[in-house]
This record gives sequence, structure tokens and C-alpha cells, in this order.
Amino acid sequence: MIESMAGLHRSHGCGELRAEDTGKEVTLMGWVHRRRDHGGLIFIDLRDRSGLVQVVCDPEAGPAFKKAEEVRNEYVVAVTGRVRPRPEGTANPKLATGTIEVEARELRILNRAKTPPFYIEDNIVVDEALRLRYRYLDLRRPEMQGIMYLRYRTTRAIRDFLDSRGFWEIETPMLTRSTPEGARDFLVPSRLRPGEFFALPQSPQLFKQILMVAGIERYFQIVRCFRDEDLRADRQPEFTQLDMEMSFIQREDILNLVEELMAHVFRETLGIELTLPLPRLTYQEAMARFGSDKPDLRFGLEITDVSDLVRGCGFKVFADAAARGGVIRGLCVPGGASFSRRELDELTRAAAVFGAKGLAWMAVTAEGIRSPIAKFFTGQELQDLVARMGGKEGDLLLFVADSETVAATALGSLRLELGQRLHLYEPEQLAFTWVTDFPLLEYSPEEKRYVAVHHPFTMPMEEDWPLLDTEPLKVRALAYDLVLNGVELGGGSIRIHRRDIQEKMFSLLGFCPEEAREKFGFLLEAFEYGTPPHGGIAFGLDRMIMLMARRDTIRDCIAFPKTQSGTCLMTAAPSTVAPEQLLELHLKTTARPAGKLSSAGKA
Amino acid sequence: MIESMAGLHRSHGCGELRAEDTGKEVTLMGWVHRRRDHGGLIFIDLRDRSGLVQVVCDPEAGPAFKKAEEVRNEYVVAVTGRVRPRPEGTANPKLATGTIEVEARELRILNRAKTPPFYIEDNIVVDEALRLRYRYLDLRRPEMQGIMYLRYRTTRAIRDFLDSRGFWEIETPMLTRSTPEGARDFLVPSRLRPGEFFALPQSPQLFKQILMVAGIERYFQIVRCFRDEDLRADRQPEFTQLDMEMSFIQREDILNLVEELMAHVFRETLGIELTLPLPRLTYQEAMARFGSDKPDLRFGLEITDVSDLVRGCGFKVFADAAARGGVIRGLCVPGGASFSRRELDELTRAAAVFGAKGLAWMAVTAEGIRSPIAKFFTGQELQDLVARMGGKEGDLLLFVADSETVAATALGSLRLELGQRLHLYEPEQLAFTWVTDFPLLEYSPEEKRYVAVHHPFTMPMEEDWPLLDTEPLKVRALAYDLVLNGVELGGGSIRIHRRDIQEKMFSLLGFCPEEAREKFGFLLEAFEYGTPPHGGIAFGLDRMIMLMARRDTIRDCIAFPKTQSGTCLMTAAPSTVAPEQLLELHLKTTARPAGKLSSAGKA
Repeated sequence: MIESMAGLHRSHGCGELRAEDTGKEVTLMGWVHRRRDHGGLIFIDLRDRSGLVQVVCDPEAGPAFKKAEEVRNEYVVAVTGRVRPRPEGTANPKLATGTIEVEARELRILNRAKTPPFYIEDNIVVDEALRLRYRYLDLRRPEMQGIMYLRYRTTRAIRDFLDSRGFWEIETPMLTRSTPEGARDFLVPSRLRPGEFFALPQSPQLFKQILMVAGIERYFQIVRCFRDEDLRADRQPEFTQLDMEMSFIQREDILNLVEELMAHVFRETLGIELTLPLPRLTYQEAMARFGSDKPDLRFGLEITDVSDLVRGCGFKVFADAAARGGVIRGLCVPGGASFSRRELDELTRAAAVFGAKGLAWMAVTAEGIRSPIAKFFTGQELQDLVARMGGKEGDLLLFVADSETVAATALGSLRLELGQRLHLYEPEQLAFTWVTDFPLLEYSPEEKRYVAVHHPFTMPMEEDWPLLDTEPLKVRALAYDLVLNGVELGGGSIRIHRRDIQEKMFSLLGFCPEEAREKFGFLLEAFEYGTPPHGGIAFGLDRMIMLMARRDTIRDCIAFPKTQSGTCLMTAAPSTVAPEQLLELHLKTTARPAGKLSSAGKA
Repeated sequence: MIESMAGLHRSHGCGELRAEDTGKEVTLMGWVHRRRDHGGLIFIDLRDRSGLVQVVCDPEAGPAFKKAEEVRNEYVVAVTGRVRPRPEGTANPKLATGTIEVEARELRILNRAKTPPFYIEDNIVVDEALRLRYRYLDLRRPEMQGIMYLRYRTTRAIRDFLDSRGFWEIETPMLTRSTPEGARDFLVPSRLRPGEFFALPQSPQLFKQILMVAGIERYFQIVRCFRDEDLRADRQPEFTQLDMEMSFIQREDILNLVEELMAHVFRETLGIELTLPLPRLTYQEAMARFGSDKPDLRFGLEITDVSDLVRGCGFKVFADAAARGGVIRGLCVPGGASFSRRELDELTRAAAVFGAKGLAWMAVTAEGIRSPIAKFFTGQELQDLVARMGGKEGDLLLFVADSETVAATALGSLRLELGQRLHLYEPEQLAFTWVTDFPLLEYSPEEKRYVAVHHPFTMPMEEDWPLLDTEPLKVRALAYDLVLNGVELGGGSIRIHRRDIQEKMFSLLGFCPEEAREKFGFLLEAFEYGTPPHGGIAFGLDRMIMLMARRDTIRDCIAFPKTQSGTCLMTAAPSTVAPEQLLELHLKTTARPAGKLSSAGKA
């Protein structure tokens, strides 16, 4: 029989009880985690959001025992009874409540449960599709509740900090205008204006700049964003951003503020003290030393340039590359001299994926350099190479001779591969770094024009303004990314607030004024009415929580995520809709005739 | 010339400076609110988010004066100078900074501005369309910034309070499944699954119940919701809800918690102390005494039932109504005896709008009752009527004889009309009330079946369970609304968590099991795996801010609202989209051929 909780008031969370509570009469409500019958008694591990506690039912308790005999896993029960110490030798040190138990005087079954399709406990090995289908059971598992709580505490810490710094959270629209640049928009047909569409925002970028024009000065928002992309590894069609923008500031102000924000968040949620200031690398430096604009600084294994050493050497591949204006760069792999032929081949293949035409190697051994190419170098050259790269006996030197970009990218990915394979870092380490001074523009061979590396509103560095006319590709932007463990946490920039610079930027991008107006009309107009200097940054919250919770996928950090193919297995969304719904929107699907409502259980 | 802010750091907000700051060197940045040239000096009222301060530029300051001559309203400038007392007799007591001024030593023009289309000041009389078109200028006005700040502080106070009570904020999906019940969904076509659609959520109702099944126990969210309704007065297609749900609680727990929440919010944001507990009216009582399920308790003017007094009277209209099972109810309007014939006719017409077939009146005068119907009553009957209704000399008694519903609704609206016309309350008063014990079901003549007054998951009151089989329309729901000044702030209920009651509910609603599964499949399935007793409530945040800020429209309380016709005048959304965008979605609009991108300036 299911009973009501009328007259009962929960007095404690299950996981809160301690030895000090001994003797207290408590009322607990939660889920039956396990039931064991032992020595004529029934033991129930009762679970709620706060944890587990052991409840004991004695046949002498009469009705309570009778009902305890009925309960199964995941039944919802209310228990009233007295806290007592566990008998000598039966304490469970793994449990926070492990020294006590609750002797049930009354037990009510508040609800029944079918047997769940998987165990409600941590570290289960279950197909993810099943977990997503029964997300309400998956979220009952303590590790998942822990992530949801961490996510909540993180947003709370962010809001506390930004409030203390004078930021106002302001909501921007979800039904907005489709913009022709950027990723693909999700569209929302307008019923009241047939043939017209809203778009879901890819970010509140334009609105937050508008808020700066509006004099809000310090804005933030934790906000849902949408991108209708082909789903690559671990992307979600809807994701959450921490979005910030400030007026009357310069780049240093934003970097410093964000560092303090991160320190606050990591202290409040994980109890970790970050050392400030965080490292800062220019884009040039990051590419040269780590072969990546989001370098993983948990380990060294830096890239070394040896172009000058091998410019005139007898190894044609190196000498030719140098002569063509390319570079010769390498990694010194500690202990790598013992790599097998097969391991070396694997590394060569990995380098080839990133465009490297070859990978040269030299093993530093007690007998000198062992390498198929050693014979092309003089003794002095070999000695200089080993010295430059800091090679010690047992190390392996790897070289790529190619364009700067290919050498950086290929060695950067080899570096990541080797860092992991050789356990050069503890996975729990946290290594933040800023990457600054990104190029403003890059050349797009497809579009045959310059395109903005960030977006057309990013301010070029003042000292590079003269280069806008002469060598635009050398102009650096006041743009910055915050990187954690090789993952981009967020990025931002100082924005252009001056019309003359904005017009120069548009002309570099090859837009005529009409085109600029068509693409960014209302923002451009707003810029003419007194726009303050401003800049900002945005962070991917899902990814940040994933790193903080040390999970492998952002799906574990979102209460109700979509699958890799963009569907919700629990609600079976998307779905077909009733034909009348499309009729009202003046829409026809050309895919197939709009069918009936699909059944709810559909995956 | 526009200058950069390099080397400058803002030291104060304009509005923060006080007499104590005299002698300090300060750097301010903001907008030129007004410029006045007077006595050879230039006075600039400099404005930022914190307020206004007067800046004085002396020709002796050289370049600063030259630049001050250039500035116009809304130019963005940085001023460095010293704070000094204003000369004797020139203090401005209306301004927080009115006793001091800043003597400019350096002035930089950070940006220019065109002349705005309206003044950046409070209480402007400007077409709302112009304000919405130039929202970035409208939001610069201090009263609008005040509302944005109030809104932010309100959400902050809500979050602080709910955090202290163990609630976790959890995000639910925006791309979800279209449900066949409720208002019309906004649809989002899926590109990856042609012919299928997501829907934007009308509320997170199903997800928050799922979170209770998932053991989250206390959830809240400040969340965007969407309804594609024909836009009635002061609705928005997207709006913001404070959404809450709790497990292991009963109705009293939620009402008490919400009262404390409201007290906290009003104290923290407006400095107003609410008196708790808030009044509670049952639905029956609210309808009988105030003729509304969202009564405005800022004033009395309660409805009085006189059915028993006139049952056998000589006035056929009253006697017949009573005999047919109808009611005769009235209002006693203080001082209403002096209403003109025209005013009485207006009231009659107003009553007719709500279905009253007539409105009888009696004026209480020194000479006795003046009324066209007085002759149908005995002297004793008249005396009893006046006594029951508390009529005093100069008052007007109004009567409606009709069904209970019509009498309540018609008198309820007359009451509101009269309360306003007779200034029976101060607009600034705050009168909260709970309305509880709503009916569970009502009969829909169109659908020829019972429909849920709230939704099919609302728990009937336990004492009324037996009536489910016998008189379902008499069953009261564990539902409650919070009303402020006659406006529904929010509503909620205890939910059904028992399968047997849920099945009974579905059968009352005339759903066969297949239909129930089709409509609410995944939630029903979830309910079988151990659902705790739970309930919750949701509040319309926009409307709450509107009442707190004492504005007439929610559009003033949303940073970027849509117009009454559902468009955004600033960004010109919705808009037509590129034909390729529809092609990718496998959609065709039947409205007209998908055109080119419409121009940004379009309204």
C-alpha cells in the first residue's frame, strides 16, 4: 500500500547524521538503495541527495517490519526512528554516516518502483544510450548528482564574484535575427509573419555590444547559445556560455579580472588555489614553443628551432627546407632512444596526418648518435643539435622540416601524443595559460579575400595600425584566449568602437558599405551614437565543468544532453509534428509528408 | 579627433563623488549629458551608470578647453581633474553630486555621437516604436537603467534566498519535444532529421518533475519560456520564469517558503517589509467576496450575497433568479448615490460585457431608498438589504441577479472599475494574497469532456478523493496562485506522484492509456521508477518586475522586448532568410517565395 506523507516532516538528510546525533528521533525520506535481510532483521540503506544511512527494522517494530519486507530497491520511503551507534565492529568507515544507524519505529512506503535497468551507483559500465534514455535514473547516481551540484556551485561562484565587481546580469533575446556570418543558425518560423524566421542566438555578441552602447558598462550573462553544426566530437546543438562585456577598460583590465574570477571559482568549488598571474603566451610564442594556439602546459617537451644550425648541412631535406624559407624544428623526447621501429613508424604516421612530409629521428646513446641520417651531418653539427635540444643519453630527437605552420602543427600534435604516452603529467594537474596577440586576419583561399580570425569587430593592436595598409596579415588583434590543459575555455577581445577603424576593417574584409550595412546594420548604426571603448570574453560553461569534474564528455555535465546525433533519447526529440502545426506556419516539409505524432517511446 | 584611453584608469563613477572627495584628483569616463557655455567657461554634465557630475573647463586649461568646445551631447569623454566645492549659491540639491564639481585638467574625446532622436532623460514623451528602434539610447535613460538594475538585483535576491534553502539551479533544454497540450509551440526544424522538429519550451514543467524523479529534491531555474500565442495585451512571445520544484514536502511547506522568498526579495531590492503570513483565500471565497480568482486586496468594496433576503420578494427578476438556483449579489459603493444617470448607464454596460443581463441599483439617501425598483420591495426588505450590505447615506447599492459565475465575474469587474474610479487605494500599496483550493476539473462544452484547470498532473485534495467517482467537478486541487494587486504573480501545485491517482485522473479526462502514453509518455514511464511526493510553483519574472518598478508594461522591464505584434524593431526580426537556409532544412514556405535578406533597417 502506498501511504501519504501527511503529518510527517523530514528532520534530516540521510547523509547528514553523525555520532553526535545518537539518541535523536529523526524522520528521513529517500530511496531504498539496498535492502538486506540478516539475522532476522531487515537492513535498508536509505539514500537521498545528501547521502546514505543504514536503517534497521526489527520484527518487534511490528507494522514497520511488515512494510520493510515489502520494499525493493528504489522504493520511496519515510522512516521515523532513533539514531543509535552501530554495534561494535560493524561500523563502515567508507560511509560518512558509518558509525551510526537508525532504528525504525515507523516506516511508510511513499511510492513503489520497478527494477531499474541499471544500478544506481557510481562507476557503472552501461551503454550511454541507456543512461540517456533513463536520464532520471542516471541522475540519481551520486557521481552525477555531484556534477550537477558542482555545476550549480560554479555558476553561483561566478555570479557572486561578478556581482562584487559591479557586473549586472541582463537577459538578451532567444528569438532574434538570422545573421549571414558565423556558424549555421537554428531557425524558428514566425507564424504571425508568414515566410519570416527568427534565429536562435549563436552568442549574445551583438546584444552585449549594444548593451555597452546603452551605458550598462559591466554586463554578464550565463546564457544558452545554439549552433546547428554537423555534430563533431563532443559538441551540443545547445550549450551554455558565461558571457561578459565591460566598458572603459583595456586588455589588461579584462585579463586581470578574469584571472581573479577563475581563482575565486576554483577556490570556492574545488578548494584549489590558483597562482596568479596566470602564464601569458603570445600566439607566436605558443605556436613556436608548443605548436598550438591552445597549448597544454601540464608538461614541457617544448619545440626547439634548429633551422640556423642545419641551414648548410649535408642532409638535403633540411638544407632545402631552410633554403625555401621553411623551418627545421624538433622535440627532444626523454627516454625515447628505446622506442621500437614500430613506435617510430607510428609517430611518423601521426606527423603525416598534420601534413608533415617526413619525420627525422636521432637517438642519443652512450655510443653517440644512432640515426639513419647521422651520416649526413658533421660531428660538430650533431653535437650542436644535441646541445641546442638539450638531449641527454637515452633521449630521442625528432625533426620536422617544413613550412612554419606545418612544422608547428605536426610537432604540436606529436608533443601531445608523447606527453600522454610517456605520462609526462598527472591528469589532475591544472595548467592555465592565456594566449594573446592573435593575428587579426587570415587569407581565405576559397573566398579569395581576408577573413577575420575572431570577428570583424575585433580591435587591431594600436602599434600595428600602420600595417593595416601595408601588411594586413601581420596585424595583431587585441584578442585573447584562456586555455586550460590544452582546452580553450574561452576567448574574447577588445572591440572596435571607432567608426574609422571599423570602416578600414570592413574594406580589408572586402565589404562595400552596403554589404556591411546588410550584415551588421543595427550595430553599425548604434556605433554612431556614442560608443565607449569596450571589450569582453565568453566561456564555454559545459566544457569548464567537464574539466573541473574531470570527465571525458560534456554530456556528463549537462542535465539533459543531446546525443552525438543531436537527439534527446528521453523525450524523443526532435519529432514529427501535427500537420496543422505546419499549416499554421505556412510551411511544407520537402523531406516526406508531415506524419502523425510519433510515439513517445521512440528513440 | 578621437583619442584612445591608453594610460588612463577610471578612478570613480561620476555619480559617486561627494563633498568628502574635495581635493582629490579623479579620472571619470562617461557621456556628455549636457554642455553649457557660461561666463567664458564650459560646463559639462558628465553621465555614467552611477549618475551625473558637473565638469568645468576653464580656457586656462588650454587643450582641455579646446576639446570641450568640440563636444556635443552623448559624446564619450574621459576627464581628469580635481574635485572642488561648487561656488557659493550654485549647489544643486537635486543632484547627489550637487555640492561639488570637477575642474578639468585633461579631457579626451573617446568617441563622437550623432544627435540622438530623443532626449536621454526620464519621463520623455516619445513614441514607443522610436524607443524600441533605438533601444540602446532608451536604455541609457536613468529610469530604464534603474529598471535593469532592479531586475538584476531581484534575480540576485531570489538566487541568494533559494541557495540558502538548499535549492540547486539546473538548466533544462531549450530544444525539446512538441507537446500536443497547452498553448501553441514555437517549432525549430531539425536539419539532421529532415521533417522533424524541436519545440521551444512553454515551461520546464516536465523536466522539473523529471528532476524530482531524479532525486534532485530542490530545484529552481530562472529560465526563458516561449508561447506562440496571438499577442494579447502585454504578452511577449518569450518571457522569463522563476521555476521551482521540491520533493518530500506538502502544500504548507511551499506556501511558507515562497512567502519568505517574497519577503526577502522585497526587503533586499525595495526595502519594503512584507507582513507574513500573507492572506490566504480559497478559490470559493475569492470568487464570492471579490468576484475574481486574482482579487485586488488593496481595497475592500466586497461583494455581498443577498439571495436569501430577496428569494420571495416582489421584484420578479430577483425572485426568478433565486428560484432558478441563481444568486443575487451586490456591491455597496461608498458615495455612489451621487452618480449621474450616465455613470449608472456606463456601469450597466460594463456589467453586461461580463454577461450580466442587467444591473439593478438603489441609492441610499436621507429621504430613503431612491431606485426604479424600490417599489417592488417591502419597507422591511429594503431595510434588510441596506443593513446586510452596510449601506450608509450617500451610498449606492448595485445588484446582479444571475448564475453564480456571471454574478461573480460581473461584480468582480465592476469592483475593479469602481475601485480605480473612486481612488479607493493608493497605487503604491502592495497587497499580496494566496488563492488556494482551485477546482481540479472544469467541463469543456467544446470538447464535451472534463479538462484540467491547471494540468493533468495536479494532485486532488485527499479529502476529496471519494468525489472523483461521484462529483468530479466538486474536487478541489492542491493548487495555489500568488496574487499581487490583482495580478497573478505565479501559480503551482502539489503534483500527482502515485500511479493509481494519475490513472484515475487520465480516465476522468477521457484519455485511454494509449493516448496518455502518446501525450506524456516519458514522464509516465519515469513515474514508475520511484517518484517522491513533490510540488512546485512558477512565477512570471517580467510581470513581477513590472509591479515592483510600478510600470504599466512588461516591455519596460525587458532589455530587448518584442512589440505587441511580436517583432524586434531594433534588429528587424523576424526576417526572411536565404533560400539555401530553407533548402538545408528541407522546408518550403507556402507564404511567398523565400526572398532575399531583408534590409537591416526594416521595421
